[in-house]
Amino acid sequence: MSYLRHVESCNRFDPSRFLPLLLAGRRVGFVRRDSAGHLEAFPHIFRLSADAVTLSDAIDGPTAATEALDEATDGLIRAGVVKPRRNERFAVTDGWGGRLLFELDRGMIEFFGVRAYAVHLNGWRSGADGPEFWIAKRAMSKAVAPGQLDNMVAGGIGAGYAAWATLLKEAAEEAGLPEMLSRHAHAAGAIRYRVELPDGMRDEVLFVYDILLPPDFVPRNTDGEVDDFRILSARECLRLVSETDHQFMYDVNLVLIDFGLRHGLIVPEEPDYLALVEGLRGSLVRGDA
Amino acid sequence: MSYLRHVESCNRFDPSRFLPLLLAGRRVGFVRRDSAGHLEAFPHIFRLSADAVTLSDAIDGPTAATEALDEATDGLIRAGVVKPRRNERFAVTDGWGGRLLFELDRGMIEFFGVRAYAVHLNGWRSGADGPEFWIAKRAMSKAVAPGQLDNMVAGGIGAGYAAWATLLKEAAEEAGLPEMLSRHAHAAGAIRYRVELPDGMRDEVLFVYDILLPPDFVPRNTDGEVDDFRILSARECLRLVSETDHQFMYDVNLVLIDFGLRHGLIVPEEPDYLALVEGLRGSLVRGDA
Repeated sequence: MSYLRHVESCNRFDPSRFLPLLLAGRRVGFVRRDSAGHLEAFPHIFRLSADAVTLSDAIDGPTAATEALDEATDGLIRAGVVKPRRNERFAVTDGWGGRLLFELDRGMIEFFGVRAYAVHLNGWRSGADGPEFWIAKRAMSKAVAPGQLDNMVAGGIGAGYAAWATLLKEAAEEAGLPEMLSRHAHAAGAIRYRVELPDGMRDEVLFVYDILLPPDFVPRNTDGEVDDFRILSARECLRLVSETDHQFMYDVNLVLIDFGLRHGLIVPEEPDYLALVEGLRGSLVRGDA
Repeated sequence: MSYLRHVESCNRFDPSRFLPLLLAGRRVGFVRRDSAGHLEAFPHIFRLSADAVTLSDAIDGPTAATEALDEATDGLIRAGVVKPRRNERFAVTDGWGGRLLFELDRGMIEFFGVRAYAVHLNGWRSGADGPEFWIAKRAMSKAVAPGQLDNMVAGGIGAGYAAWATLLKEAAEEAGLPEMLSRHAHAAGAIRYRVELPDGMRDEVLFVYDILLPPDFVPRNTDGEVDDFRILSARECLRLVSETDHQFMYDVNLVLIDFGLRHGLIVPEEPDYLALVEGLRGSLVRGDA
C-alpha cells in the first residue's frame, strides 16, 4: 500500500530546469529553461536573462498584461510551440481572492507555470460497505488524461467565476445535477500540488467538495467530456489508488486520498498518515519562492 | 470575523527564547533559555552550551533516557521549578509511529518542549440549522484551561496507547460513550500547532475524529474532568471562535475551524480559506529545525 507516492509524483519538480516568470518584481509563474528561448521573439513583452523571464516594465496593469500575453500566445501557436487555444480564460491573481494580474488562455497555464484553481466534487452515497462514489470515465476526446477515471465532477475555475459558481456550472454540465440537488454539496477543504509536465509546470489548488447523493440519483453527462459513470466503493477506489498509477487522472488520486482521510478510511495508525495530511496542503497560500 | 488569528496565536513562538534539546545529534524538544540553567544541577544528564541543551552521550537507549529524565523531573519538582507529576506517561518518539526515544511524565512535556499527540472528538448531531455539537465545559479542577469550553471528548495519547485506543478510552471516561457507539467515530485528519506557554512550549498534533450521534444520546462524564455538556449549533460555535479568545480552550478553536472547513461551514469564498487549510497542518511530520 502506498498512497504517499501519489503525493510525491504530483509534486515532482526540479527548480533547476525552470526560470521564474517575474511581474513587477514578483514571481507569478515558472517557464522551462528549454522553452524560454521561444520568448525571444517578443522582446517588447519579455526580458530574458540567465536567471529569470521578466514581463516588460512598460506593460502596466491587467488589461495591458492580458493583451501582451495574448499576443505571445498567438505567436507561440503560429510557431507550433504550443497547442491551439482552449478558448477558456483563466485569471492569474495575486493569491486566491487577490487582485487580477492578467487573464490567460487555459492552454497556456502550464507553459507559463502560473497558479490555477479548480473544483472537484466527490459524488458519494452510503453503501453496505461504507461510502460509494460515482466515478466518471473521461472521454477519449479530452486533451488531458483521456479515458482515465475522474471524480464525478471536476473543472477549472475560469476568469470571472467564483469557486461555488464553477461547482454548480460543472455539476450541471458534467453530471446533470439540477441546482436543487447540487446546492447540497459542501466545501470540504483544499489540496495543492505542483508538478513538471511535458508542456511546463502545473501549480494547482483544488477546492474539494462532497455531496451525499440520494440512492436513486444517476449522473448523466451533457457536455461530452465523460464517457460513462460507474459506482465504485470508496475502499475499491483507495485500493486502485494505492496499487495503480494511471487508473485515475493523477490529481484525482489526491482527492480520493483526502476523502479517505476525512472519512476515516485512512486512519492515524497508517504510518504515512501525517505525511499525507501535510503533503496534500503544502504551500497553499504563498506558492513557493 | 477572524478565524485566522487563532492559527496565529496557537503558533506564536520566538525561537530566540529557546534552546534546542538534542539527543544523539537530533532535536527532540525545546527548552526555554531562562529555564535551562535549572538543568545545570544534573551535569551527568544534560550538557549545556550557548546554543543547545544536549542529553549526555552516556545515556544509551530509551530505558536509560527515561530513567535519566525521571531523575531530572524529580529534582526539578523538589526545587519547585515545575509542578508535581501528573503521573501519566507520554512517549517521545522519532516521529509518529517511530521508535521510542524516552517516556516522560505528562507534566514535563512543555518544560522540555517535546512533540505530544492527542485525540479530539467532535460529537455532533444533525439539527434544523445544520450540525450541532455536544460541547464540554472543562471542570474547574483541571490543571489546564479550567472552566473553558472543549470538544465532547479530548485527551492526550499516553505511552503504550494507539490513537484509536485512546479515543475509545477517553470517549468512555469523559462522555460515557459505550464502545458500541464510539466505534462509529471516524478519523478525519490532523492538526498541528506549536506555541509558547508559561511553562515552556507546546508542540502538539491533534488527531481529529467526528462522530454523528443519535438525537437521543446525552453525554455523561464519569471521570470528573467535565462540569457539564451543552448543545451548541456549529454556526454558534464558529461565531464564538471568530469573536472570542477564551471561550474555548485555545486548541479547540482550531478543531472547530477544521470541522467548519470539512463540513462546508467555512467556504472558499472566505478570503483566509487557503491560509486556514494550510495553517492548521504546518510541519506535521518533521516538526521544525
